[in-house]
Amino acid sequence: MNMPSSVRIVEVGPRDGLQNEKAIIPTPLKIELIDRLSATGLRSIEATSFVSPKWIPQLADAADVFSGIARKPGVNYPVLVPNLQGYERARAVGVEEVAVFAAASEAFSQKNINASIEESIARFAPVLERARADGVKVRGYVSTVLGCPYQGEVPLADVVRVATRLHRAGCYEISLGDTIGMGTPRKAAAMLAAVAAEVPMDALAIHFHDTRGQALANILACLELGVSVLDAAVSGTGGCPYAKGASGNVASEDVVFMLDGMGIATGIDLPRLIETGQWLAAQLGRETGSKVGKAAA
Amino acid sequence: MNMPSSVRIVEVGPRDGLQNEKAIIPTPLKIELIDRLSATGLRSIEATSFVSPKWIPQLADAADVFSGIARKPGVNYPVLVPNLQGYERARAVGVEEVAVFAAASEAFSQKNINASIEESIARFAPVLERARADGVKVRGYVSTVLGCPYQGEVPLADVVRVATRLHRAGCYEISLGDTIGMGTPRKAAAMLAAVAAEVPMDALAIHFHDTRGQALANILACLELGVSVLDAAVSGTGGCPYAKGASGNVASEDVVFMLDGMGIATGIDLPRLIETGQWLAAQLGRETGSKVGKAAA
Repeated sequence: MNMPSSVRIVEVGPRDGLQNEKAIIPTPLKIELIDRLSATGLRSIEATSFVSPKWIPQLADAADVFSGIARKPGVNYPVLVPNLQGYERARAVGVEEVAVFAAASEAFSQKNINASIEESIARFAPVLERARADGVKVRGYVSTVLGCPYQGEVPLADVVRVATRLHRAGCYEISLGDTIGMGTPRKAAAMLAAVAAEVPMDALAIHFHDTRGQALANILACLELGVSVLDAAVSGTGGCPYAKGASGNVASEDVVFMLDGMGIATGIDLPRLIETGQWLAAQLGRETGSKVGKAAA
Repeated sequence: MNMPSSVRIVEVGPRDGLQNEKAIIPTPLKIELIDRLSATGLRSIEATSFVSPKWIPQLADAADVFSGIARKPGVNYPVLVPNLQGYERARAVGVEEVAVFAAASEAFSQKNINASIEESIARFAPVLERARADGVKVRGYVSTVLGCPYQGEVPLADVVRVATRLHRAGCYEISLGDTIGMGTPRKAAAMLAAVAAEVPMDALAIHFHDTRGQALANILACLELGVSVLDAAVSGTGGCPYAKGASGNVASEDVVFMLDGMGIATGIDLPRLIETGQWLAAQLGRETGSKVGKAAA
């Protein structure tokens, strides 16, 4: 067992979670969410995304959100950037860490961003170059690592290839995303092991959606291989555009409850995180997507 | 890894699931549920409970339910019996397998059935004796194995003692229940390992509630130790009387999805099980408690 003794949670609720909300969420609410999250002990909070407002209107206030948060020393606030233009907008408001994204599925890449995997990686080259010069850390996302809504199975070799490309291109950490929550524990572990044969385990994170309730079991199987960075979203926000009414990201509260129970340190104050998730659910006018949150209500 | 190559699911929805429903469910609906479940390939379906109707009005129709189902060859339909009187009522309608139950928590036993653990086990002695004479199989439940709503922590030694007592008394299988869904993977595995040191693993089953979203991860940790019998409830029925609005039993659909993905055989037709869960949720007028069911909707 290579089970880590401590884990870093990358909270993706403010970006990956809220990005799928239909109603435009007021900027002050986004800012309050991030500030509440930074008070729980989280050290990494993905704040927003500097994509074109034409693509995703929900994220049109990226600069205002980032400028509005009370940045806490010791906390990273990465933001997504799709290209150099987004990178420059982000840097203009003081962003110090960015994230780029590519798909492991060719079909998903074409449908999602209208570019081949190779084209999408090429598009990030100038971002990575500029970031290196600026001393800005870059995180890389690989999506559809355990299945694709368009092509179905995604060959492990494709996941390994894309993850390795992003790592070699300068991403300090590669987050492997089960975008549609198709994975089960053996497949999740096999995928992680295949990538870890090429990229050091301490440069890998897992990002699992709970669409079919498998996320915690998949995380457990990956923890057993030694992964120690986990993406999660408070209140389980995120949904799934490919399955109506389905669950979103694995809920941060449920992950931290599991880790606490296993004696794996996170530095997070669980009651405070639960309260934040319940507060967010109330703001969004719905039930929390965290079972721990529900049980505590 | 002692991971089993096949697993038997004990479907507890018709009893443990529906027992917590506030509105009385019509008998024909219960019968239809059981018959739909037996058509999915399930081999063990807990049909009802012959407790006193005064205790649980929802189960007052136990004899009618059992008499009404189309018993399928090769499928077991165990029923709960609290005492010899219940056993006799069950036998009168042709029951061939019964289940008895005890708590691992002294406080829970007192509050739940107004008897000490020892008294509750003594109460089952005549049932076990008669069952042996009748050639009737007896399953034993141990509840609160990973925590108690009244006493909090439950010492492992107490779980082992009660499970061993039931096994020695003649129960062919002991189902270890995380009644309030407090468990996390390491604790679940440690509990199972402790019991398996005294009772053979192939005489053990696990029965986890998903109150805090941990059930599948806990099941995975226990599968790694070799357990091959899992209790689950279609559509995740059951709720939790100790946490308002919380999830119930782990959903059978979510368990089978995980096992299918892991290449562990169950003999269950997952699409048909999903359909049954969605049908049940519609009958109960609520969303299914299965994330696999939701994603398929």
